[in-house]
Amino acid sequence: MPAIAGVKLATAAAGIRYANRTDVLLALLDPGAVAAGVFTRSKCPSAPVEWCRDKLAGAVPRALVVNSGNANAFTGRTGREACAFTAKIASRAIGCKPANVFLASTGVIGEPLKAQAFEGVMDALVDHARPEPWLEAAKAIMTTDTFPKVATATARLGNATVTINGIAKGAGMIAPDMATMLSFVFTDAPVSAQVLQALLKDGVADTFNAVTIDGDTSTSDTLMAFATGAAAAQGAPKIARPADPRLREFRTAFNAVLGNLAEQVARDGEGARKLVEINVEGAVSKASARRIAMSIANSPLVKTALAGEDANWGRVVMAVGKAGEPADRDRLSISFNGIRVAYKGARDPGYDEARVSELMKAQKISIKVELGLGRGSDRVLTCDLTKEYVAINGDYRS
Amino acid sequence: MPAIAGVKLATAAAGIRYANRTDVLLALLDPGAVAAGVFTRSKCPSAPVEWCRDKLAGAVPRALVVNSGNANAFTGRTGREACAFTAKIASRAIGCKPANVFLASTGVIGEPLKAQAFEGVMDALVDHARPEPWLEAAKAIMTTDTFPKVATATARLGNATVTINGIAKGAGMIAPDMATMLSFVFTDAPVSAQVLQALLKDGVADTFNAVTIDGDTSTSDTLMAFATGAAAAQGAPKIARPADPRLREFRTAFNAVLGNLAEQVARDGEGARKLVEINVEGAVSKASARRIAMSIANSPLVKTALAGEDANWGRVVMAVGKAGEPADRDRLSISFNGIRVAYKGARDPGYDEARVSELMKAQKISIKVELGLGRGSDRVLTCDLTKEYVAINGDYRS
Repeated sequence: MPAIAGVKLATAAAGIRYANRTDVLLALLDPGAVAAGVFTRSKCPSAPVEWCRDKLAGAVPRALVVNSGNANAFTGRTGREACAFTAKIASRAIGCKPANVFLASTGVIGEPLKAQAFEGVMDALVDHARPEPWLEAAKAIMTTDTFPKVATATARLGNATVTINGIAKGAGMIAPDMATMLSFVFTDAPVSAQVLQALLKDGVADTFNAVTIDGDTSTSDTLMAFATGAAAAQGAPKIARPADPRLREFRTAFNAVLGNLAEQVARDGEGARKLVEINVEGAVSKASARRIAMSIANSPLVKTALAGEDANWGRVVMAVGKAGEPADRDRLSISFNGIRVAYKGARDPGYDEARVSELMKAQKISIKVELGLGRGSDRVLTCDLTKEYVAINGDYRS
Repeated sequence: MPAIAGVKLATAAAGIRYANRTDVLLALLDPGAVAAGVFTRSKCPSAPVEWCRDKLAGAVPRALVVNSGNANAFTGRTGREACAFTAKIASRAIGCKPANVFLASTGVIGEPLKAQAFEGVMDALVDHARPEPWLEAAKAIMTTDTFPKVATATARLGNATVTINGIAKGAGMIAPDMATMLSFVFTDAPVSAQVLQALLKDGVADTFNAVTIDGDTSTSDTLMAFATGAAAAQGAPKIARPADPRLREFRTAFNAVLGNLAEQVARDGEGARKLVEINVEGAVSKASARRIAMSIANSPLVKTALAGEDANWGRVVMAVGKAGEPADRDRLSISFNGIRVAYKGARDPGYDEARVSELMKAQKISIKVELGLGRGSDRVLTCDLTKEYVAINGDYRS
């Protein structure tokens, strides 16, 4: 991972939940940066989600503090106070206002976050922040992720080359937690807050919002982007309008980083052994294709069949049928990893079950559903549903 | 189970999928019966569902033929022909028209149903039909249900006592199948088809439609009711209008049969070890309470926690939050088996974790969510999500 001019990172072990485990990330931003964010749609969001939403309009971001081990969710007034306290000690160490500090938390919910723990590490985090440790940053925000998730891309902006770095944590659990997705993207491109927000909002639709592990929405989902503008020094033009045509290549690279991280989240779903891509074509609209694809991706029966390496197209039919979207059984075709198994409302007479079974052993499974109704198409990513998923989420009491 | 005047039952092994396994049920209805039905909302319904829907208006029901082993779903034209053929041979054996015969199938999908198999058994089924074998009838329609599901009730109608019998099969699988729910209710009450349909439509809302095993909707869900009217001979009045006040006791008994069968379906969900009742109170409306209760009931994270006997209220909060319905975290209270664990937006300081953990070992778990917003309440039933569920649905290829 390359450095991003204007961004410095540091991690520490504050003992939030476990001793001697790296559980805090500080990202420092040089003055002049802008911020954007999209958050969980949960009606019961965590305290840091509310904090970030509240501070985002007209924000002058100077720092991001992320902890793992405690989600600070469903913690009532204590939770709000923990946010304010964390921002206060960070701002004091940095020399800025509390409102310049963004916050995210992931981990156990319903337990008060002991924000005093940050006091012991905050000055050292600020002192030791460096441009390099991206992988350490990605590791600091992991819970039960099995690997750290990072992605990078460059793009030409005017005559300069700008860089986009992203980190994410995926759907992991710490007893007794819920899945939380956190992701942070940084760039040196001199784009305005309005441009960055528009890029983020557009980009999330077909990346993070097209991923489901189990259909359960976290209280803590947070995707934030920060642009330092440092590339202006190399001649990158300042971009103030989302429609600026000079953004084209940057937008592509930005979306590639989001897409890359989202795919890593799907691949590392709890207990997952397979990455599953679902393409729906021939729907009456893209929105309809999305709902059908999500119905398939969230079906426990489809996902357990995939865990069993079974090309069970009957369950895909079931999931298409239950989506409530226009679908005509007699026009429906379904393929697994490129082999058509159902055609126009019945089993494809030509399909070779042995060949399909062999292909189902692959680590990536692609399901294609052709509805034959219109031109709407969409793609979502998910993973299989294994006994390990049940074990991770149900066994910890035993 | 008592007899119902005007109804005779017989079962047989036709070898639909396995040899020597009882897989066909014939219910014969004396002339004068009426029928009602509610069916899956799937956009890809099975051939028998389409057959029944088509024949229901103005129906003169004389027989119901149900088979297990093959769902006759996603079978295209072959499936429609199999329905017509089955109805033809049944009508010939009975001496009625094919349109007088109702059909339901459960089992493997996407495979052609060999309806010729019924030819070998149909005459004997008609000959041997008797009023008694309700338990055998319930067994004949099982797939991987672990017990046959029957329920009965009586009610006063005018000065006569009428009887209501019901059977059901729940969410079971036969590789590579999907869950299917079939249920059939019979009564000797002299109610019109319009009254029966109204009773069924009203009764299903808080019984079968308030049950979820895994949120997956079958292509085959069928609930039919048949009223022979035979109790008119004992003086039961003929009821032609759903609003007739004389129906009050009958309606209660009818709903009790539906509710009893629905609870058995939830208790016998695939891999289930616990029956789970979710009560949502204080919502802005009953519909809102239903959506929140279903969000909790369908959450894999809630269901795996229950399998682990963990009173994980954090996941209940998550499921409330993702339902998209009005909810205020700071007013939310949650109880498990009568013990309040969360109160007004935070962990209940008074709760005794050891006591709750002890109660979570019970076979029936009750979750109560109090939203504190309005007077809407609702109740749904579900079960826990165990490794056995994954095994039943994912292991058969190994």
